[in-house]
Amino acid sequence: MFILDMYIVYLFRLKALMRGDIVLRQILGEIEEELLTLEDDLTYWVDTNIELIRQPLKDMILSGGKRLRPAMVLAASRFGNYDFENVRQLAVSVELIHMATLIHDDIIDDSPLRRGIPSIQARLGKDVAVFAGDFVFCKVFELFALSEHFSLLRIVAKTLHLICEGEIKQREDLFNTNLTFKDYLYRIRRKTAMLFALSAELGARASKAPERTVRALHRYGMNIGIAFQIVDDMLDFSSNDDQLGKPVGADIREGVITLPTIYALKYSNQKNSLKEIIAKGFTHESDVIKAVEIVKNSGGLDYAKRIAEKYVYRAQQSIAPLPDIPMKKVLADISTIVVNRNR
Amino acid sequence: MFILDMYIVYLFRLKALMRGDIVLRQILGEIEEELLTLEDDLTYWVDTNIELIRQPLKDMILSGGKRLRPAMVLAASRFGNYDFENVRQLAVSVELIHMATLIHDDIIDDSPLRRGIPSIQARLGKDVAVFAGDFVFCKVFELFALSEHFSLLRIVAKTLHLICEGEIKQREDLFNTNLTFKDYLYRIRRKTAMLFALSAELGARASKAPERTVRALHRYGMNIGIAFQIVDDMLDFSSNDDQLGKPVGADIREGVITLPTIYALKYSNQKNSLKEIIAKGFTHESDVIKAVEIVKNSGGLDYAKRIAEKYVYRAQQSIAPLPDIPMKKVLADISTIVVNRNR
Repeated sequence: MFILDMYIVYLFRLKALMRGDIVLRQILGEIEEELLTLEDDLTYWVDTNIELIRQPLKDMILSGGKRLRPAMVLAASRFGNYDFENVRQLAVSVELIHMATLIHDDIIDDSPLRRGIPSIQARLGKDVAVFAGDFVFCKVFELFALSEHFSLLRIVAKTLHLICEGEIKQREDLFNTNLTFKDYLYRIRRKTAMLFALSAELGARASKAPERTVRALHRYGMNIGIAFQIVDDMLDFSSNDDQLGKPVGADIREGVITLPTIYALKYSNQKNSLKEIIAKGFTHESDVIKAVEIVKNSGGLDYAKRIAEKYVYRAQQSIAPLPDIPMKKVLADISTIVVNRNR
Repeated sequence: MFILDMYIVYLFRLKALMRGDIVLRQILGEIEEELLTLEDDLTYWVDTNIELIRQPLKDMILSGGKRLRPAMVLAASRFGNYDFENVRQLAVSVELIHMATLIHDDIIDDSPLRRGIPSIQARLGKDVAVFAGDFVFCKVFELFALSEHFSLLRIVAKTLHLICEGEIKQREDLFNTNLTFKDYLYRIRRKTAMLFALSAELGARASKAPERTVRALHRYGMNIGIAFQIVDDMLDFSSNDDQLGKPVGADIREGVITLPTIYALKYSNQKNSLKEIIAKGFTHESDVIKAVEIVKNSGGLDYAKRIAEKYVYRAQQSIAPLPDIPMKKVLADISTIVVNRNR
C-alpha cells in the first residue's frame, strides 16, 4: 500500500513537473522549501477516517496546484517579523479555502477533471462532493480554532462571505449577454481576487508588519488576483484540454460570461450571432466551437491580456514603496508569471 | 413591498401554527419570548445584497422550523449565570449550522419541499443551493469571529467536522442492506445528535455552569438528538406528505437505511423481497410503496419507537442530578415532545 502510494505521489509530481509548476517553484526561492513542508500539512489536514473521501482528498492535494495563495502568505510575512511556524497554519488555511471552493465549483461546472485528474464530483458524484467540500471547509474552521490567530478570524470570515457572494453572483449572471466590464470586475474581485488579497494580508498581519505595508500587500494581492482570474478566463479559450486539465470552452458552455466574451459581444462583427448562440444555451457541441471561434477572432483575448497586464502593473505599483528585501523581487516575479502562464 | 412581506410572514406563521410548532412554543415557557427575538436575528444574519438568494433564505427562516437547537442553548444556559445577550449569538449560530446542512441535504435528497415550502434547491437549482448553503455556513464563521466566544470555537469546529463525516458516512452506507444498529447509531450521532449536544453544551459553558452540569447537559443533548433522529426516520414511513413537508418514503427511495428498515431486514417474513427491492435501487414508484409496506408490517416502527423512548429516558436520566429549576421541567417536556411529534 505504501509503495503504491509513493508511486502515485511520484506520478503526480512528475505530471506537475511536466506542466510547469516547478518553474514557479524556482522563482519562489527561499520559500520553496517551506512550501514543500506545507504539502505534508495539507495532507494531514484533509485526512479523515471516512474511507469514501479519504483517498480522493489526498489525491487532490497530491495532484498539485500552484499553491500561489500559501506562497503569498509566506512571501508577505517576510515584510514583518518573519517566523515560519507563526504563519504556517495561515498558509494552510488559504489553500484549504481554495480547495473547498474548487470542489464545489466542480459540482456546479460539471467538471470531469481538476488538475489533470478526475474531479471529486466525477469520482464520487455530486452528492458526496457537496459534503466533501463542506468537510474541507470545516477544517478551515478547525484550523483557526486551534491556532493563535483569533484576531485574524474576522478578516477571514468577512472574505469567505464575499467569496460566496461572488460565486452566487456568477450564477445570477449566467447567459447574461448584457454583462458589463464593471459587473465582471465585481464578480471576479469577490470570486478570486479577495482570497489572494486575504492571503497577502494574513501573512503581513500575522508577522506584525506596519499597517501601511499590510495595506500595500493587500492591494498587491487584489490586483494579482484580478489579473490571475482574467488570465484564467482567457485560458478557457486559448489553452488546450491537456494544459488546462479541463475541456476548452467549459465556461462559455455553462453560460459564464467572461472578459473576452464581453469584448466580443460588443465589438465582434459577428456579435449578433454570438448573442444568439449564447441565448440558445449551447444545445449542440458545434455551438460551443462556434462561440469560442467568434470570441477568438474578435480580438477579445488580446484585449483581456492588456487588461490583465494593467492589473499586474498595478500590483507591482502597490508594492513599489515597500522595503527592498529579496521577497519583493519574488512578488514581482509572481505577478509576471501570473500573466504569462499557459495553464 | 413591505405589506406583501408582512402578508407572507403572516401566512408562514399561520401555517407553522397549524402544524403544531406552537405547542412546542408553549412548553418552552420563559424562553419563548427570547426565541421570538431570535427570529429577527436569524433574518438579519442571512440577509445579503445578492438578490438571487435574498428572498429564498429569508423565506426559509420565515417558514418556521422547531428551533429546538436554539431552545436548547437558551434552556441549558439557565443552569449557569443566565444572560440572554451572552448566549444570543450562540443560539443563532446553531440554528444557522442546522440551516446550512438542511440546504445541502436537500440537494442530495432532491427534496422538492422543506418545511412545507419549496426547498432552496427546488427554487434555485442545485448549483445555487450549493453556494447558498456555503453562504449560510460562512455566516456561522462570521458570527463567531464577531462574538466573544472564541474559547467555544474549538468545540464548534470539532462538531462541524463530525457532522460532515456523518453526512458522508450516510452516502457510504446507501443501499447497504447489511447495516447494523451500531452503524446506524454511529451515523445519526454524527449527523444529528452532536448538534443537539453542542447546543446544550454551548449554552451551559457560555453561562459558566459547573463542569459536571455542562457534561450532563451535553449528554442530555446527545440522547435527545438520537431519539429525535430515530423519530424523524420513523416519520419517513408513518407520516403523510403534508405533515412531513416532504414525500413519504423519501429516505428509503434514496437508499438511506434507517432503524425501521434495519429491523425489517432482519425480522420481517418478507425480508428477502425487501432486500431484493432495495438492491434493485427503486426504479419503479411501486417498489417504494412495497418497501414502505414491508417495513410498516414488520413491526420495525414499534421497535424504533421503543429505542427512541429508551434514549428519551436516558436524556431524562442525564439531567436528573441537576438543580430543580423550572428549566429542568422544560428540558424534560422537550424530550417527551420529541418522541410524540408527528412531524
